[in-house]
Amino acid sequence: MNYFTGIDLGGTSAKIGLVDPQGRVLDSTVQKIDATAGFAEIAGAISDALGKLVKGQRGRRPAAIGIGSPGFVDAESGILIGGAENIPCLRGKSLTRFLEDEFRVPVSADNDATCAAAGELKFGSGRHFQDFVLLTIGTGIGGGLVQNGKVYRGSRGFAAEMGHMCVSPRGRWCNCGSQGCLEQYASAPAIQRLYLEKRRKRGLLAGGTNADVREIFKLAEKKKDTCAVDTVEEAALYIAQALGILINVLNPQACILGGGVSQAGETLLGPVRRSITDFSWPTMREGVEVLAAELANNAGLLGAAAGAMDRYGDEV
Amino acid sequence: MNYFTGIDLGGTSAKIGLVDPQGRVLDSTVQKIDATAGFAEIAGAISDALGKLVKGQRGRRPAAIGIGSPGFVDAESGILIGGAENIPCLRGKSLTRFLEDEFRVPVSADNDATCAAAGELKFGSGRHFQDFVLLTIGTGIGGGLVQNGKVYRGSRGFAAEMGHMCVSPRGRWCNCGSQGCLEQYASAPAIQRLYLEKRRKRGLLAGGTNADVREIFKLAEKKKDTCAVDTVEEAALYIAQALGILINVLNPQACILGGGVSQAGETLLGPVRRSITDFSWPTMREGVEVLAAELANNAGLLGAAAGAMDRYGDEV
Repeated sequence: MNYFTGIDLGGTSAKIGLVDPQGRVLDSTVQKIDATAGFAEIAGAISDALGKLVKGQRGRRPAAIGIGSPGFVDAESGILIGGAENIPCLRGKSLTRFLEDEFRVPVSADNDATCAAAGELKFGSGRHFQDFVLLTIGTGIGGGLVQNGKVYRGSRGFAAEMGHMCVSPRGRWCNCGSQGCLEQYASAPAIQRLYLEKRRKRGLLAGGTNADVREIFKLAEKKKDTCAVDTVEEAALYIAQALGILINVLNPQACILGGGVSQAGETLLGPVRRSITDFSWPTMREGVEVLAAELANNAGLLGAAAGAMDRYGDEV
Repeated sequence: MNYFTGIDLGGTSAKIGLVDPQGRVLDSTVQKIDATAGFAEIAGAISDALGKLVKGQRGRRPAAIGIGSPGFVDAESGILIGGAENIPCLRGKSLTRFLEDEFRVPVSADNDATCAAAGELKFGSGRHFQDFVLLTIGTGIGGGLVQNGKVYRGSRGFAAEMGHMCVSPRGRWCNCGSQGCLEQYASAPAIQRLYLEKRRKRGLLAGGTNADVREIFKLAEKKKDTCAVDTVEEAALYIAQALGILINVLNPQACILGGGVSQAGETLLGPVRRSITDFSWPTMREGVEVLAAELANNAGLLGAAAGAMDRYGDEV
């Protein structure tokens, strides 16, 4: 039976796994990444770690290798163009070319949120749909698009930067250089900021205290802390605005919320669903499901492997 | 040689034409529509008019028929779901089925802005691109999406309602039931409204005077009427916001502006290009062309025929 390799590239480590077409992880390992090392060293270490896993399959090579990477990966060359601040030494280089030469199998690389969409399509909440949008909400906000049962990557492979949709013209400045990006209003740090601002405004604490996002959602769920309730409502409103735009533009069957923040489940999904009616045409939103991503453990690995399956087919 | 039929459905008439794969109109006619008549009568009149054109081709039938329709057309059934206020008697009916039975060739129907995108892809500004977004700016604002050299229609055929992207949360109410839609800030009536508001605010006229959109653009071009200049800048800013979102989400090669308002050319395109930098990620907008649609005369006919070519292939 065929299997695929998924490589989930992060700032401090790469998770590497062998995944079968049903989404079972046959074997996996974690390779630490020394961000100060050079490209050759990091790529070599990842390649060696993968080589060991492949050896465990009696040397049978994977059908294809998929890499999930932060930042912008050029679709054609696999070169990391930019945006991956934590692993600068990989920028301008193509890990796909390197691994292609090493393993002599097709290798593809996608932005990690694009991989997450591929993962949900193959193995998660997205498997019932042909057309959906995925929003991954964590430290940042990313996204993925699935159309006609395939991941849509855009002309250069950069599509679905939903975290940088403008939801507040002349609003907060974002790292990307624009103002009012969704990421500034609904990512984990943004939710923390919103909460603390509300507390401060209502004289409930001095500045500087930290608030955990999970804690904020728990407080909102219990409905005892109005600052928490209002914070979640506000973040949900911005998410709904972005989803409303995506519904009107893309006419999807479903909107899937993934990433750490979406683990709040109905506490977040409920207000998002209610507010979507404010931002989308009735005919367009009719029947559109708003639901949580399913893949939690190994989402990165499965997504990376699914990215390769999406490109090369399950039956390479 | 094959030819295709395009039917450009409007509130008062249907333009019907025979179009060859190179976009030449072989023959055409205009059939008046009596909006108070029933479906059978209107469909019969269109069918008869087309029959006469086909007879002129020595009875050789078209390879396929494409209909460009206002409102929401269900992709599968061809049923007009809603949104076409001027021809209510066609709603809930399928003109595609009717013509399929009459002519025994494939018939497809799309929203007219979707057809415009197909037209630009086959015969206009879009023919150099595989991935672009089209904004049609006139009395309303519509749009079309081209991805991998094909029109993308969404799960039910309703995609690309760009006129209803929220660009101003809690902004002006729109006919669609939402607030702050692009259509409320950059369509022809919106531009007229913006201009008159500015004139009134500056004490330059009493309310009620009419202003022609072409005139406003001419005044802006000459740079002598600051109200006109500011109006165009403001409308361009909203258009740029929508295009910036679309660039970040879809990673297109080009943004094409069509419809009556876009005939203002560089007077509109210039400020739009400048403002797009405020709403899109530098990596994403790099190399993205912002240009005017090319098809003017017969755009509706050519678009409708191109919609069928896009669906069934040029060589049916």
